[in-house]
Amino acid sequence: MLKYEILKKSKETKARLGKLSLPHGEIFTPVFMPVGTNATVKAMWTDDLKDLDVGIILGNAFHLYLRPGLEVIDSFNGLHNFMKWDRAILTDSGGFQVFSIRNKKVEEEGVKIKSPLDGSEIFMTPELSMKIQMVLGSDIAMAFDECVHPDMDEKYVEESIERTYNWAKECKKYNNKENQSLFGIIQGGFSEELRKKSAEQIVSLDFEGYAIGGLSVGESFPVTKKILDAVMKYVPEDKPRYIMGIGTPDLIISAVENGIDMFDCVLPTRMGRHGTALTNYGKINLKAGKYKFIDKPIDEECNCKVCKKYSIGYIHHLFKRDEIFGKMLLTYHNLHFLLDFVKRVRDSIYKDEFLSFKKECLDKGLITLESF
Amino acid sequence: MLKYEILKKSKETKARLGKLSLPHGEIFTPVFMPVGTNATVKAMWTDDLKDLDVGIILGNAFHLYLRPGLEVIDSFNGLHNFMKWDRAILTDSGGFQVFSIRNKKVEEEGVKIKSPLDGSEIFMTPELSMKIQMVLGSDIAMAFDECVHPDMDEKYVEESIERTYNWAKECKKYNNKENQSLFGIIQGGFSEELRKKSAEQIVSLDFEGYAIGGLSVGESFPVTKKILDAVMKYVPEDKPRYIMGIGTPDLIISAVENGIDMFDCVLPTRMGRHGTALTNYGKINLKAGKYKFIDKPIDEECNCKVCKKYSIGYIHHLFKRDEIFGKMLLTYHNLHFLLDFVKRVRDSIYKDEFLSFKKECLDKGLITLESF
Repeated sequence: MLKYEILKKSKETKARLGKLSLPHGEIFTPVFMPVGTNATVKAMWTDDLKDLDVGIILGNAFHLYLRPGLEVIDSFNGLHNFMKWDRAILTDSGGFQVFSIRNKKVEEEGVKIKSPLDGSEIFMTPELSMKIQMVLGSDIAMAFDECVHPDMDEKYVEESIERTYNWAKECKKYNNKENQSLFGIIQGGFSEELRKKSAEQIVSLDFEGYAIGGLSVGESFPVTKKILDAVMKYVPEDKPRYIMGIGTPDLIISAVENGIDMFDCVLPTRMGRHGTALTNYGKINLKAGKYKFIDKPIDEECNCKVCKKYSIGYIHHLFKRDEIFGKMLLTYHNLHFLLDFVKRVRDSIYKDEFLSFKKECLDKGLITLESF
Repeated sequence: MLKYEILKKSKETKARLGKLSLPHGEIFTPVFMPVGTNATVKAMWTDDLKDLDVGIILGNAFHLYLRPGLEVIDSFNGLHNFMKWDRAILTDSGGFQVFSIRNKKVEEEGVKIKSPLDGSEIFMTPELSMKIQMVLGSDIAMAFDECVHPDMDEKYVEESIERTYNWAKECKKYNNKENQSLFGIIQGGFSEELRKKSAEQIVSLDFEGYAIGGLSVGESFPVTKKILDAVMKYVPEDKPRYIMGIGTPDLIISAVENGIDMFDCVLPTRMGRHGTALTNYGKINLKAGKYKFIDKPIDEECNCKVCKKYSIGYIHHLFKRDEIFGKMLLTYHNLHFLLDFVKRVRDSIYKDEFLSFKKECLDKGLITLESF
């Protein structure tokens, strides 16, 4: 179902520019995928996502399984028609959500949890995850994996990557390649050795793309970078590579530098709803009193429809009054900012100027490469 | 500042079609004014208001005086520039808000209240109200009036209309006619006699327009109609007439029938944020479980961008998950619906078909003329 083509390789780093062809459109990579957990990218009109040139969004198998439920999605012929989004969708397998639940029982066949809705038992298995994603009808499905809590010891992580491997095999069995592409997920915690092992296991199953899971879960920036560097050696070059749950400019730069093509994160939308704006000179919290009188756009270098029209002082006021329109404006700006940032990353690879672009970002304070 | 022209009078009723020329544009009347209390029509992009052909919105002197405060609005050169709305604005005097506060002291010169923000004393006077509205720079300012609680006895109402009369005189004194039009407000509770007296007093001051205040405050529909009928006899025909705080199709029809030209109400936006949709066949609450599977638009006769694209089932899901996008969609639809309804009212006056339009609305269940 999926076609991935490398258009250009950076001479300076492992960064690459690519084109991903999916049933619902073509996407240039590196690509940022806005998160649409509940069949909506929060506070955004679908048409505005298109105006921002969003080619792919992320949907969430577990959330949508709970509500509205498979019966509803099925009666609407899938997520695309339900939410009226005719471009590509990647669905998360539900692994991350299931493992975020405190009371769970991990078994060899899957994970038993109580439904957050009504307390009934849910047994999330590779088969169920694949079934949900098939009903959702996403362009790309993710294999069901075990997301290990960062505090777990290496012994546990070692056992868990075996489960992730077995579950990946199961997912392949249930994947209908004609309708949906399937990505495998590499786990292994913060051990370079286990990451290598997990990568070799998952890659041996020959997926259409590979994801790195279990990063950006609270570890320090150098650890993220170290693991990323270690694992990427074992991921085939000719397949799209996706790092899950990252979306700060810092991490995006590091990921791209290591040859990553895809990323998703709630950061721009969540920050936007809470009053923080991404700018070319770093983040700013528009709720701060000092912005009350400022009759300037959020970012004078930004040409989004928010920055072209509205002032910081006005948006500050909207947040002080907890007005929905404030959340709408900042969500739009932040998505525009991050999508435009990734576009500039692509341009820099195309022009073989990735490292000078990175330096420019460092000089401005847009990235620090220290923390996130 | 204001020019009002009657374009057509209904042969069957007192309804009339008019044109109101204001510094920020021309508006055809009868007109519905969406409410933008805090310098935003809640959950709406300003550009979407324009797409809906909104020519005038309502701003709120008291809310904006509290936050962001006059100093901020002044530094932005007024409300139009602050919120980036270049069409007309009418500002409420703050009377209604001040009288909604429980602990207040009504004096002959104004009303003393404690600020809901910090408890400091605010003495709201006609002079202060006019000063606020001047800083806001609205096209139409409203005189500061006493909004009497509907439970007050006739003795109190009689005294209060004298205050409203005196305050109206004060407001005229502070009104700079070159920059801003000023409307007087007729009060008088539910007494036909006091309404007559208040109307005569206010009209004697020769305002550029007249508003009926103190209706739609919980009284029954027949009472609203009776008072409206009683008071309109004393309001000059050649001036725009505004009934404050109404916005149900029932009340709009009754108001227009009595020769009213303008109305405002939070109803379509507030209902929208709470999951209720206005339709040609009455209101529906999209949160109801029965809508879960419905793959149809809210109103098949509606041609707004929400009804052209999204299903009831999808919007139901968004409300179940308390998603902002649900509020955005229903706010848009409801405003479109009410604005379109008023446009159809205007068309019916133009074609001298107002009564048959009213009958059609009754037959459909869009209005009941019984309650609201």
